[in-house]
Amino acid sequence: MIAAGYAMHEVSFLQDLAVVMIAAGIVTVLFQRLKQPVVLGYIVAGILIGPHFSTLILGGDGLKLVHERETIESLAELGMVFLMFSLGLEFNLRKLGRVAATALVAAPLAIMLMVFLGYQVGQLMGWTTVSSLFLGAVISIASTSVIVKVLREMKREREPFAELIYGILIVEDLLGVVMIVLLTGIASTGDLGVQSMLISTGKLLVFLVTVLVLGLLVVPRLLNFVARFESNERLLVAVLGLCFGTSLVAAKLGFSVALGAFLVGAVMAESSQIHRIESLVEPVRDLFIAVFFVAIGMLVEPLLLWEHLVPILGISAVVIVGQVVGNTFGTVVAGHDLRTAVRVGTGLSQIGEFSFVIATLGLTMGVTDPSLYPIVIGVALVTTLFTPLWIRSADGLTDGILRSAPKPLVGYLALYKDWVERFKGGQWNSLASKLSRKWILQMAVNMALVAGVILGAAYLARLEPAWLTKWKLTPDSLRAALWGAAMVLSLPMLIANLR
Amino acid sequence: MIAAGYAMHEVSFLQDLAVVMIAAGIVTVLFQRLKQPVVLGYIVAGILIGPHFSTLILGGDGLKLVHERETIESLAELGMVFLMFSLGLEFNLRKLGRVAATALVAAPLAIMLMVFLGYQVGQLMGWTTVSSLFLGAVISIASTSVIVKVLREMKREREPFAELIYGILIVEDLLGVVMIVLLTGIASTGDLGVQSMLISTGKLLVFLVTVLVLGLLVVPRLLNFVARFESNERLLVAVLGLCFGTSLVAAKLGFSVALGAFLVGAVMAESSQIHRIESLVEPVRDLFIAVFFVAIGMLVEPLLLWEHLVPILGISAVVIVGQVVGNTFGTVVAGHDLRTAVRVGTGLSQIGEFSFVIATLGLTMGVTDPSLYPIVIGVALVTTLFTPLWIRSADGLTDGILRSAPKPLVGYLALYKDWVERFKGGQWNSLASKLSRKWILQMAVNMALVAGVILGAAYLARLEPAWLTKWKLTPDSLRAALWGAAMVLSLPMLIANLR
Repeated sequence: MIAAGYAMHEVSFLQDLAVVMIAAGIVTVLFQRLKQPVVLGYIVAGILIGPHFSTLILGGDGLKLVHERETIESLAELGMVFLMFSLGLEFNLRKLGRVAATALVAAPLAIMLMVFLGYQVGQLMGWTTVSSLFLGAVISIASTSVIVKVLREMKREREPFAELIYGILIVEDLLGVVMIVLLTGIASTGDLGVQSMLISTGKLLVFLVTVLVLGLLVVPRLLNFVARFESNERLLVAVLGLCFGTSLVAAKLGFSVALGAFLVGAVMAESSQIHRIESLVEPVRDLFIAVFFVAIGMLVEPLLLWEHLVPILGISAVVIVGQVVGNTFGTVVAGHDLRTAVRVGTGLSQIGEFSFVIATLGLTMGVTDPSLYPIVIGVALVTTLFTPLWIRSADGLTDGILRSAPKPLVGYLALYKDWVERFKGGQWNSLASKLSRKWILQMAVNMALVAGVILGAAYLARLEPAWLTKWKLTPDSLRAALWGAAMVLSLPMLIANLR
Repeated sequence: MIAAGYAMHEVSFLQDLAVVMIAAGIVTVLFQRLKQPVVLGYIVAGILIGPHFSTLILGGDGLKLVHERETIESLAELGMVFLMFSLGLEFNLRKLGRVAATALVAAPLAIMLMVFLGYQVGQLMGWTTVSSLFLGAVISIASTSVIVKVLREMKREREPFAELIYGILIVEDLLGVVMIVLLTGIASTGDLGVQSMLISTGKLLVFLVTVLVLGLLVVPRLLNFVARFESNERLLVAVLGLCFGTSLVAAKLGFSVALGAFLVGAVMAESSQIHRIESLVEPVRDLFIAVFFVAIGMLVEPLLLWEHLVPILGISAVVIVGQVVGNTFGTVVAGHDLRTAVRVGTGLSQIGEFSFVIATLGLTMGVTDPSLYPIVIGVALVTTLFTPLWIRSADGLTDGILRSAPKPLVGYLALYKDWVERFKGGQWNSLASKLSRKWILQMAVNMALVAGVILGAAYLARLEPAWLTKWKLTPDSLRAALWGAAMVLSLPMLIANLR
C-alpha cells in the first residue's frame, strides 16, 4: 500500500456504501429473475451483509463488511425523507377523484379493522397499550411499492381493479401520516387521554394548515422563478433545500420528519414544474431508498426472525386475511361487484415501507416491545412473497364464495350493486353534478382549512404562551388579535370559495 | 416539543443537510443574477454557513449552523467520487479526436510550465519540496466546470476556440489523474527518487491496464444485461455499485478514490447505455457536488484568506498570466492563429475542482504547508471572478500583441500557421490517412496495454510475493507462469489489432 495511513475514514465510509450498493445490485438482479419486487431484494441484501448474518455463519465477529453503521443509518433516514417526499409528489387529488368514493369508504374501513385486529393481537401477546397500538398501525397500511411492482410484473396495472387499488393506497398513505403524528403524540405523553389527543390534533391541524397555505402561496412561485434559469442543478438544489428545510421544521416542532417531507411534496405537486422535478428527484430518491431498505435489512437478526416465527406467521395470516376482508367489504359497500372487490382486497394484502417507518419510530422512541421490529420484517417478507400468489387466486376465491354463499345473500349483493350504480349513473354522472361535486370538494377542503386556523387560534389563546403575555395585552384584546390573525390567514381560502 | 428526546442524531444530520442545501440554493440564485458560475456560489455559501464566518461576526462560538462536520465531509468525499466519475463518463476519445493535435501539444506544455512556476513560488515561500510540488500541481489544471459555465453564459460555447478548450480540458483532466497518483506516491514515500517513481509508475500502469481491460470486457455487458430489465432503479444501483466498488479497490491498493472513479466512468462511457446512465447519474452527481463545494467553503477561515492575501494575489497573477502564456503558445505551436490561441489561453486561466481535490489530498495526508488550503481557495475565487473579464479582453489583447510585436515575428507566425495547415490539409486530411490514423491510434493504445501487462508480470516476478512462493514453484517456472498469464491477458488486445 502506497498510502497506508491516508484517510481511513474516507475509505471505510466508501467501503460501507460500496458494499451496500453492490449487495443491493446483485440481489435485486437475482430477485428480478425470480420475479420478486425489488424492495424485498434490498431487505434480503441488508440481512446478508448485516452484522448478524455473517456472525451466525462464521461465528465470532463475522465479516464486519460494514464499519460505520451510524453513517449508513443517517443515509437511511434520508431515504425515509425521500420516500415520504415522493409519496407527496405523487399525491394527487385529481387522480383520486375518479375512484374517490370507493377509496374513501374502503381505506378507512380496512385500516380501522386492521388497527383493531393488531391491537388485539398485541394485547394477546401481553404487550403494553402503546406497543399494541403500534402493532395495529404497522399492519394497517399496504405497501405501495410492492403492489405497483407486482401489478406491473403481472401486466395488470391498467385493469379497473388496479385503479381502485391506487386510490385506496393514496387514502391509506394520507391516513398513515395522520397515524404517525398521533402515535408520536401518544408515545411521548404516554397516555390515550382525550385531552392530549385533542391537543395533538389541534397542533397537527395548525401545522398542516400553515404549511399548506404558506406552501401553496410561496413554493410554486419560488420554483417557477428558479426554473426560469433553465439549470437542472439549481432547480434540484432548490427542491432539496425546501424538502429538507420543511422536514427539519416539522421535526423541530415535534412532528416527524416524515410528515414534513410528505407535506412539502404534496405542495410541490401543485407546481407547474412537477414533471421536471419528478425526473430530477427520481434517481436521488432511488439511491437513498435503496440504502433505506438495505439498512432495514441490516438491523435484522436472522436468529430473532426464527425465534419469533409463530407470531410472524400468525400476524402474517391476520394481515393476509384481514386486509382482504376489510378491503373487499369496503369495495363492495362502495358499489362494486364481488369479483372486483376480491381482486382489490388480495392486492392490498401485505405490509411494507410505511410499516418500517412506523416501527422505526417506535424503536427510536423506545416505546415498543423489542420484538416488534423483527416481527415487522418477518411479516413484510411473508406477506410480500404471498402477494402475487394471492392476486392470482382472487378469481378462484370469488367463485368459491359465490358457490358456497347462501343464495339470498348473493342476490342481495347484485341488487345493492345495481342500486349504487343507478345512483352514480343517474344523479351523479351528469356534467352539472360533476362540477358541483368539484365545487363541493373544494369548498369542503377550504372550510376545513379555515376551521383549522380558527381552532389553532383558540388553542393558542387558551395556552397564553409566554411570548404572547409579554405584549402585556388583556386576555380579551389578545383573543381579538388572534381572531384577527386567523381571519387574515383564512382570507385567501374564503376568497377562493367565493370565486 | 412533543418528542423532545426523539432521535436528536437524525434531526441534527437533517439540519446540517438542510442548512447546506438552503444556503446553496439561495446563494446560487443570487450568483445566477450576478452572472457568476454556480461553483463560486457554493463555495461562498460554504464560507457563510461555516463555523468561522459566524464566529468572526458574532464572536464566541458563532451560530453553529452545522453540527456534524464529519458527516458533511463524508458526503463531500462522495462528491469528489462523483466529480471524477462524471469526468470519466464525459471522457471521450472520439470527441478528443477532432482537436487531438492541439490538445496533446498545448495541455502538457501548459501543465509543465505551471508546475514549474508553482514549484518555484513554493520554494520562494520556503515550503518543502513536496509542498511546493503540490502547489505546482494545484495551479496547473484549469476548471472544467467554471469554463463550461462561463462560456455557456457568454453564449460562446459553440465557437471554434471553445472546441479547442474542451479538448485541452480532457487532456488536462487525464494528466491531472496521473499527477494525483504520482503525488500520492511521492508524498507517502517522501522522496523523489527515480526508483520509487518507477515502481509507482509501474504499479499505476498495471492498475490502469487491469481496470481498463477487465472493465471493457465486463462492464458494458453487465450494464446491457441490467438495462434489459427496463428499471431505472436497478440500472442506477448497478452503476453506483460499480462506481463505488472500483473507487474502493483503487483506495485499497493505495491509489486515490479519484482515480478509480475516473477509470470506471471512462469504461462506462463505452457502454451503449451511456445516455441513460448520464441522465440517471446527473441529479445524484449535482447533489453531492453541491455538498462538495459547500464543504470546501466551510473549511475556509475568512481571516486566513485575509492573512494570506499577498500570496493569494501573487499566485492568482501567476495562474492568470502563466496559463495564458502556456496555452496560447501551445495552441500557436499546434498551428492556430494568434487570435484563437489567445482566446483559448484566456479561457483556461483559472483553477477549480481539480485543485481542491489535490489540495484535499495534501491536507489529509498531512504533507503540505497548512496555508496551502486557504491559498487555493483564495486563488480559485480570484481567478474564477477574473475569467469572464479576461475572455472578453482576449481580442483586445491580441490586437495589442500584434501591434507591439516585431514585424518579422508576426510574419513568421503567419508562415508557420500556413505551413502546419498545409501539412494537415494535404497529407493528413484524405480519407485513407484518417483511417490509418485511427488504426495507428488503436494499435498504439493496444500495444501500450500489452506493454503494461508484461511490465506488471515482470514487476510481480521480481517481488516474489508470499502467495506466489506458497505454490512452491522454481523461480523459472514461476516466471513462465507469469508470462503465460500476461500473454492470456494481452490476447484480446492483440486480436483486436489483427482484426
